[in-house]
Amino acid sequence: MKLSKKFQPDWREDVPAEGSYRSIFKYDPTKFKHPNAAWYEMFKKEFGMSDEDFKQRQPGGDEQVKIDHKITLTDDQITAFHNMVGGENVATDDYSRVKFSHGKSLDEDLSLRKNIVRQAPDLVLHPRDKEDVKKIVEYCNANRIPIITYGGGSGVVLGMRADKGGVAVVLRTHMNKVLKINELNKTCRVQPGMMGPDYEAALNHAPERFGSKIAYTGGHFPQSFELASVGGWITALGSGQASTYYGDAYHIIHSQEYVTPAGVIKTSDIPGTATGPKVNDILKGNEGAFGILVEATMKIFKHLPENRQRFSFMFSSWEDAVNASREIVQGEFGMPAVYRISDPEETEIGLQLKGFNDGLLNKFLKRRGFEPMRRSLCIGTVEGEKSYTVNVKKQLTRIARAHGAMSLTGYATKQWEHGRYSDVHMREDLLDYGIILDTLETGVTWDNLHNLHQSVRAFVKQRPGTCCLTHASHFYPQGTNLYFIFMIKPRDDEEFFQFRSDIVSKIVEQGGSVSHHHGIGRMFAPWMEKHLGPEQMAVLRALKRHFDPQNIMNPGGTLGLDD
Amino acid sequence: MKLSKKFQPDWREDVPAEGSYRSIFKYDPTKFKHPNAAWYEMFKKEFGMSDEDFKQRQPGGDEQVKIDHKITLTDDQITAFHNMVGGENVATDDYSRVKFSHGKSLDEDLSLRKNIVRQAPDLVLHPRDKEDVKKIVEYCNANRIPIITYGGGSGVVLGMRADKGGVAVVLRTHMNKVLKINELNKTCRVQPGMMGPDYEAALNHAPERFGSKIAYTGGHFPQSFELASVGGWITALGSGQASTYYGDAYHIIHSQEYVTPAGVIKTSDIPGTATGPKVNDILKGNEGAFGILVEATMKIFKHLPENRQRFSFMFSSWEDAVNASREIVQGEFGMPAVYRISDPEETEIGLQLKGFNDGLLNKFLKRRGFEPMRRSLCIGTVEGEKSYTVNVKKQLTRIARAHGAMSLTGYATKQWEHGRYSDVHMREDLLDYGIILDTLETGVTWDNLHNLHQSVRAFVKQRPGTCCLTHASHFYPQGTNLYFIFMIKPRDDEEFFQFRSDIVSKIVEQGGSVSHHHGIGRMFAPWMEKHLGPEQMAVLRALKRHFDPQNIMNPGGTLGLDD
Repeated sequence: MKLSKKFQPDWREDVPAEGSYRSIFKYDPTKFKHPNAAWYEMFKKEFGMSDEDFKQRQPGGDEQVKIDHKITLTDDQITAFHNMVGGENVATDDYSRVKFSHGKSLDEDLSLRKNIVRQAPDLVLHPRDKEDVKKIVEYCNANRIPIITYGGGSGVVLGMRADKGGVAVVLRTHMNKVLKINELNKTCRVQPGMMGPDYEAALNHAPERFGSKIAYTGGHFPQSFELASVGGWITALGSGQASTYYGDAYHIIHSQEYVTPAGVIKTSDIPGTATGPKVNDILKGNEGAFGILVEATMKIFKHLPENRQRFSFMFSSWEDAVNASREIVQGEFGMPAVYRISDPEETEIGLQLKGFNDGLLNKFLKRRGFEPMRRSLCIGTVEGEKSYTVNVKKQLTRIARAHGAMSLTGYATKQWEHGRYSDVHMREDLLDYGIILDTLETGVTWDNLHNLHQSVRAFVKQRPGTCCLTHASHFYPQGTNLYFIFMIKPRDDEEFFQFRSDIVSKIVEQGGSVSHHHGIGRMFAPWMEKHLGPEQMAVLRALKRHFDPQNIMNPGGTLGLDD
Repeated sequence: MKLSKKFQPDWREDVPAEGSYRSIFKYDPTKFKHPNAAWYEMFKKEFGMSDEDFKQRQPGGDEQVKIDHKITLTDDQITAFHNMVGGENVATDDYSRVKFSHGKSLDEDLSLRKNIVRQAPDLVLHPRDKEDVKKIVEYCNANRIPIITYGGGSGVVLGMRADKGGVAVVLRTHMNKVLKINELNKTCRVQPGMMGPDYEAALNHAPERFGSKIAYTGGHFPQSFELASVGGWITALGSGQASTYYGDAYHIIHSQEYVTPAGVIKTSDIPGTATGPKVNDILKGNEGAFGILVEATMKIFKHLPENRQRFSFMFSSWEDAVNASREIVQGEFGMPAVYRISDPEETEIGLQLKGFNDGLLNKFLKRRGFEPMRRSLCIGTVEGEKSYTVNVKKQLTRIARAHGAMSLTGYATKQWEHGRYSDVHMREDLLDYGIILDTLETGVTWDNLHNLHQSVRAFVKQRPGTCCLTHASHFYPQGTNLYFIFMIKPRDDEEFFQFRSDIVSKIVEQGGSVSHHHGIGRMFAPWMEKHLGPEQMAVLRALKRHFDPQNIMNPGGTLGLDD
């Protein structure tokens, strides 16, 4: 017994071999975070597994990438691309063709583990600048060559599969720099291929690097921060973990420059206009289907980590947490930055996994009426000017207390900050043993929150052996999002895909959006028409026809625009 | 001399006769505000006029409206409209045809004073509900009958001239009600023809009228508040005087329902989505060229007038005022609601007109170094939760003082509040004696503010006998607006139109937007392509073709989309 209890799976700690499938789908090849003993016990209990089940791994995708997808471009065309961007910026090797057409969805992970590559682009191009991009788009449009655009490769919605072959345009290789920090306007002009951490570091160190008077932050910290590019934030409409204060990517983007088959579009930095429908906003979220983003002006904010206030609360119930949160974000005293409430199952599993359930604090909480599987955890931060952060924390604490919350100080928030970008690295450990952790998320109005949460949970939980953790993490006065994390050990991949598809249908049927911040890609395209209605889809299709009459930009179903 | 000094023009105080041209163009037929003695002295001085010039009035448009524009609709078509909306909701009389196709631009005022009606619709329709609107649009689309939409009639950009005849659809007659207040979502569903004051009163009295728990405000108070409709705010992209806190109309609109020739489009109330380009935003600002807004969900805010903080400051210079304002709105401690800085000429004329220049305070100010024609006035309010308003006022006062400002307490703001909606009533008094006061406004980035201000001022002031008052009144972290008020006594109308046109060209040439919050209409359409560029115009035209393939919606050049 003792030995068995101590058994821990031999979680893989090896960096995937260069050139292997695993090096493509593993979230960050060089980073690891393994399930701790509490996680492991939870898997066994939830999925009816034993130590035996963790002795034999699933196929790990360790093979070298090798594909037999024909290159259909002519030699003349390939030569033309060489002339456009320089030979050193054209790749035709199998590895490049697979790497730069795959994101981080479960679907791609499961396929690549079995060495299945559904589609691949003919060529991979690494443009040096926006002039190169212009040449590429013009040439491809004239020759009807499909284009997919690769930013950071962090997408989880099959947003850039090369369904029609053609070329993959990789922006992060060369087009990855801050062009200008404008301290008067509080904006930063940046190239789309810059990765999140590089962008944030450039802003944090702006005085040294750019001679600016003060340091800045971009205010955008999605969970994919380490792997995502600035351009991806914009074109797929991401939300950062501090979006309740800083806004979603939609709000942080100030102006943009796109190369489209219909020409180059550069929008203005003027902050307020009444000059008809705002083309700048029309371009956001096009997921590469209208054109290629080549530059963006982002709003920037003072970097004031010294003013950050952390808070965390335990509420007696999810209802109390929701009511307090609504009152807080409708309170008109400013907004918290990070703000997140976990439903009872997420709260409970979170506590369990941190080994908290056996501690004194848990006993104390229970005695105070914070019962397991009823209580709800709230964590967050306030950012901004000092007096503002102090006041917002004071006001939201007052409201939380009025709803019966107990303050847990900033400790729980610090714990969350510690794992905010690294928990995702556990995914391969789970998949190595056939366990799937996937997420679905939706936007919701306040008056539909409980209905949507309960309906989706009821549907998910009717499948035996399914964990369903839910939180709300992006708040607006008019509503929030619901983020569903579900963990299952499916019979096979097909069961998982069907199950996920059914959950999405349930979300849409109950009035949630198809996505709050993951985007649509090809994965959620089938629900677009039902969610938006045929009239709105017709508008998107009209825009598509305008920008991309030959349908060369990210063809194959993204946003439900073709196929 | 004494008698002469005491002479005051015989400003008209008569309500325009029913059925007269004057009853159409006068801002509010029943309200009057006359220039005081200081204004009168200023006119004489600035425009080289004498008492004699104020003894004979210009043509006043007192004649009864009578037009000879043919009705080209067939009897069958007219009968069809009768059947659609009921005979009592169809008007063919001359007065209706002129009234419901004219706004409040100087251009319309000057024409109607001379009984000149350039265009008129054949019929005026007063739909009872959105089903009526649907029938009208379907029928007009099938029969290629042009439609102009009339909300409150406050527009100043020739936004609804019936250039192609057809029908005028008046929304304010029947479609003028609050449909629902949603206290959970903090939204109000409203019909587009509801007038500003009615809408605000409904929200302020929501507990009595709708049984809501608390009272609300819509947060939108444009200078045209008393004459504008909610639908006009949305479709022409207005900004309220408290927009720095509440946002422009663009931000306050939450979702919309339009009837377009391409069908009915109803967008969702979900506050955050990543489902492609946001059609809800694409519809805002279409100025009636895509379809007719029939319902809107607006964000609403707690009505907390008891928390309002007022402040006003005198800065030594415009540069100081601008620097302090930028620091304030980039301060990350929240935003003031009303916030307004006046350039030296506006500050000076404002003080003169309030008889302040001869007082003790002026001597005191001068002694403290606040020199006439250098000093700049700042006024404003803070709204929201109590602790927030106290803190924002405290922080912005700290910053203003650091830039050398002297606090004038809330007195100047109260004075401004007193005249905020009524100053416009002076317009007819001026026009009665050939003096034109018109306004042009533009959005601007911080880094272009001084260039734009100086260039436009220099251009305006090179014309002798021209007042040019400028303020900034809508603030964003990335910039603000410049609102130019110019007063001239032109040789003739033509001189005025040419002069105004040249100022607009100067604004656009120097990098300002064609409009910040007045909209485009037909007046500013000629500058759209230069301002937005051909690529953005092509996007707007593509949308126009999609929504309105027969070009029946507000045809004749609005937004530069046709002609």
